[in-house]
Amino acid sequence: MKILLVGASGTLGGAVRTALAGRGHDMITVGRTGGDVVCDITDPEAVGRLYERVAGGSGLDAVVCAAGDAVFKPLGELTADDVAASFRGKALSQIELVRQGSRHLSPAGSFTLISGVLTQEPILAGAAASAANGAVEAFVRAAAIELPPQRINAVSPTVVTESLDAYGAFFPGMESVPLSRVANAYVRSVEGRQTGRIYEVA
Amino acid sequence: MKILLVGASGTLGGAVRTALAGRGHDMITVGRTGGDVVCDITDPEAVGRLYERVAGGSGLDAVVCAAGDAVFKPLGELTADDVAASFRGKALSQIELVRQGSRHLSPAGSFTLISGVLTQEPILAGAAASAANGAVEAFVRAAAIELPPQRINAVSPTVVTESLDAYGAFFPGMESVPLSRVANAYVRSVEGRQTGRIYEVA
Ligand SMILES: NC(=O)c1ccc[n+]([C@@H]2O[C@H](COP(=O)([O-])OP(=O)(O)OC[C@H]3O[C@@H](n4cnc5c(N)ncnc54)[C@H](OP(=O)(O)O)[C@@H]3O)[C@@H](O)[C@H]2O)c1
Ligand SMILES: NC(=O)c1ccc[n+]([C@@H]2O[C@H](COP(=O)([O-])OP(=O)(O)OC[C@H]3O[C@@H](n4cnc5c(N)ncnc54)[C@H](OP(=O)(O)O)[C@@H]3O)[C@@H](O)[C@H]2O)c1
Repeated sequence: MKILLVGASGTLGGAVRTALAGRGHDMITVGRTGGDVVCDITDPEAVGRLYERVAGGSGLDAVVCAAGDAVFKPLGELTADDVAASFRGKALSQIELVRQGSRHLSPAGSFTLISGVLTQEPILAGAAASAANGAVEAFVRAAAIELPPQRINAVSPTVVTESLDAYGAFFPGMESVPLSRVANAYVRSVEGRQTGRIYEVA
Repeated sequence: MKILLVGASGTLGGAVRTALAGRGHDMITVGRTGGDVVCDITDPEAVGRLYERVAGGSGLDAVVCAAGDAVFKPLGELTADDVAASFRGKALSQIELVRQGSRHLSPAGSFTLISGVLTQEPILAGAAASAANGAVEAFVRAAAIELPPQRINAVSPTVVTESLDAYGAFFPGMESVPLSRVANAYVRSVEGRQTGRIYEVA
């Protein structure tokens, strides 16, 4: 399959890239600052240019996203702009990948988005991220009834073991998962036939 | 209790107003075009002015919201602006009521937001509304661990019987609920002691 991977240089994205490439797929990598194509997915016009550029020829078989930014601050310190930036950075951006991507994707193609455990299990300072994740998951369930035959799922991991140095302090006592299990959930979404699923990795 | 009710002139809001006033609460009504105070809650500065105006004196015991707009269009016709407007109209607006309201609310006070069945059960043309509802519900769960002793819940109804003329066509075969049950869920949120709950009315 020809697969567009957004966030390929990141912690999750790197593992997803290795896993999917190892299964023989053709990967086109996208990032804000590097990759085969540079694109800031929070900019709808940039997303349009991204698809024009990569979807020619044989078309795309999957769009896979492992990119998303949210603001982490105690509720009392969050500004209105922080909340809006979190929606743009994690929810609107990924919805835009689907909204514009559908007409470039092959009929049997799929979208796989990223959410996270915070949808269901909050942490201190994570309210904006929880809200953005909740938006992504509900959008996935809803888009799944309008996209067929194309499919859409989300991967919703808890903190990954490889990120504990960076984020572990936010997740006291919560068990981490190895990146390999997260990458597996992406493989399951891309190569399986299910749609509208939230693949929790916990 | 002194209760701020946003969306008091609406279908849900009217029933919530009657139910809470009937239980002896002091209601301050808010709407975009009418009510004791006129305020467009999608404008953070207007929300600030709303609280300055109503929170003096004895303070506020509850903020109750039955207002929220989302765009309903088939996924293939939704624009990026429609998606952004739906987040502003239903999610950012309600999050702003909480973000700014917390310091005006009494310590034992509560927030009750509105989401809806579309978080879990999508309908055609409802993807933007589902996303906004999902954001509201995940935000409620997250804010509930940072607000105590203040509380926060959401009411998540399916289509109400009194709205079937207007929206029934979007909900084929889905059972409706009477407004009185939705109003009851608001009473439960305001007068109960639970927090972080999504009160589904289905
Ligand atoms: N790490 C975890 O434990 C964990 C657990 C659950 C969920 N998640 C979620 O998984 C996602 C990725 O996390 P991560 O730890 O892998 O992050 P990361 O290491 O910071 O990587 C993020 C990747 O996404 C790209 N990116 C970010 N914003 C972008 C944009 N607007 N347009 C295009 N590319 C963009 C980055 O590109 P540049 O480097 O070029 O900016 C980078 O390649 C996040 O949404 C996070 O919430 C992570
Ligand atoms: N009706 C249902 O069957 C149903 C079922 C589940 C969920 N819901 C949800 O419940 C909420 C209310 O639905 P409804 O049917 O009662 O709607 P409605 O009859 O249209 O009433 C909406 C009310 O909210 C106010 N409002 C809207 N946007 C506002 C804003 N930006 N700032 C301040 N006030 C605003 C309106 O004031 P103005 O009239 O002055 O503009 C009006 O009082 C919506 O979020 C809807 O999704 C409804």
